[in-house]
Amino acid sequence: MASPASSQPRGVYAAVLTPLSASYEPDTALFVRQCRWLLDNGCDGLAPLGTTGEANSLSVEQRIRLIEAAAGSGIPMAKFVPGAGSCALADAVKVTKAAVAAGAAGALLLPPFYYKNPSEDGLFAFFSEVIQRVGDARLRLYLYHFPQLSTVPITAGLIARLMKAYPDGTIAGLKDSSGDWANTARLLKEFPGFGVFSGSEEFLLANLRAGGVGCISASTNVTAPLARPVYLAWQEKSADELQKALTEVRLVLQSYPMQAALKQVCAAIHGEPAWLNILPPNRPLPPAQASEIMARLSALPQMKALLGKAATKAA
Amino acid sequence: MASPASSQPRGVYAAVLTPLSASYEPDTALFVRQCRWLLDNGCDGLAPLGTTGEANSLSVEQRIRLIEAAAGSGIPMAKFVPGAGSCALADAVKVTKAAVAAGAAGALLLPPFYYKNPSEDGLFAFFSEVIQRVGDARLRLYLYHFPQLSTVPITAGLIARLMKAYPDGTIAGLKDSSGDWANTARLLKEFPGFGVFSGSEEFLLANLRAGGVGCISASTNVTAPLARPVYLAWQEKSADELQKALTEVRLVLQSYPMQAALKQVCAAIHGEPAWLNILPPNRPLPPAQASEIMARLSALPQMKALLGKAATKAA
Repeated sequence: MASPASSQPRGVYAAVLTPLSASYEPDTALFVRQCRWLLDNGCDGLAPLGTTGEANSLSVEQRIRLIEAAAGSGIPMAKFVPGAGSCALADAVKVTKAAVAAGAAGALLLPPFYYKNPSEDGLFAFFSEVIQRVGDARLRLYLYHFPQLSTVPITAGLIARLMKAYPDGTIAGLKDSSGDWANTARLLKEFPGFGVFSGSEEFLLANLRAGGVGCISASTNVTAPLARPVYLAWQEKSADELQKALTEVRLVLQSYPMQAALKQVCAAIHGEPAWLNILPPNRPLPPAQASEIMARLSALPQMKALLGKAATKAA
Repeated sequence: MASPASSQPRGVYAAVLTPLSASYEPDTALFVRQCRWLLDNGCDGLAPLGTTGEANSLSVEQRIRLIEAAAGSGIPMAKFVPGAGSCALADAVKVTKAAVAAGAAGALLLPPFYYKNPSEDGLFAFFSEVIQRVGDARLRLYLYHFPQLSTVPITAGLIARLMKAYPDGTIAGLKDSSGDWANTARLLKEFPGFGVFSGSEEFLLANLRAGGVGCISASTNVTAPLARPVYLAWQEKSADELQKALTEVRLVLQSYPMQAALKQVCAAIHGEPAWLNILPPNRPLPPAQASEIMARLSALPQMKALLGKAATKAA
């Protein structure tokens, strides 16, 4: 494997939420504003159009429009790793090409997730076709391991096979959203230098200390300001306390349907009700849960600064 | 619920396979030929672009091209119920619109299948949005229940709610691919007059006798000539023997990865090696399995006529 470039994505990444109009069209202006806010508030980079970004609920055209809107608005593409996966080979190629053309630092690819128990051979063929059809040496692929939703795991065997076939650094890393730290730890051990992100900031510190590159998380749309100090201090003992405060917030957020919960909290933080729109089959939080999550977050001292601003904006 | 029109889809339907070029582009000419062959060899109708048709491995454009190719080639649209589902609302709307515009008798819709355990509310919102955005009184929706692949069941509660909201016959029927006959029987009892197709010809006779409308099956791409007599004789006692012979073939076919097995057998029957191309993550049958399945089918007397022709063509 090629040694990672110094510009390799690293640190706290947010799986950027996709703001939508009431008729479910992506709101590109609000999207760019969220990208900026995240980079200004603790994020080292952005991973839009994943599970959190409702990418699979969007058409290819809608997804590419968001990538181009970010690139055209000066969001630094060196910090931009959009989701580009699809069950349809032609679609995965199209979105990945758009990401590379925009100058994105990488593309995060789900395996094709409709057919169940695909063979390693079939998954290798899929990713390999994407790489060859994109046909661009700039491509940096991040494999997206999220078996709870995709139902199709990214195995060590598949990674090894892809790395062997593409030894030029194309197979750049992986997002481990399994929530299974033992799996992340195993991959870090087996593939030193591989760009492994945890899928939750709960494992940010553990990941960095085990040789990983950071986290790509849904909830850093909210917790980025708390994740930043953990990343800055990860080599120091003080990081443990910071991680504890961060994890406490994450655990509240993940006890609700994630996309809906984060859109609820974003609507409050930014004083922007458009954030509540969410594509079916996901639904907004019911009012009782919406009040409850805000009450639980407000009760956490580490959330005071962030939600204080929200209260001011809402007033 | 409106009483079903006399032209309501009924009988033996094939979930038409999608022939592909070596570079995985749909072969529209071969597709139209397969549609014709099926109608000439026992099928009452065609349900392309489902699981068997690898629809989720195809882009929206590729799917629409196949629908338009069939319509433009004179395949009778009154017997045509293409799959039109997608996780992306905009895509499901686009394909469904294309099906209605082509004059198709119906559109078979998967639920959005990426997010797991969606609420009934979220699924209702999805199908309801599709219906309203298509906005065409000609639309006849067939719900696609295939929990083993979609992971998202179509429940009786959801059907009832959709029928109540759209009492004009829009919610025309369901394909039950669960393989769970008890589920089909329950639905037939609970929704009399609802157009329920079994997902396998194994249950063709039972379905018809319980008030269902027929089967939409992957394997009727091969077994249509054997399914036809069952459908013609279903009210007679002799149908049981015919069903037995049909089921025997189905059981052989379904003991292999279904799409690959059917493409293998189609390649033999039609003497057309292009049938072997299959989109990743699916893979062609390995040579040993390919020989085995042909040997097992050839050993069945009821397959003699069909495979005899194959042997002649191959020679």
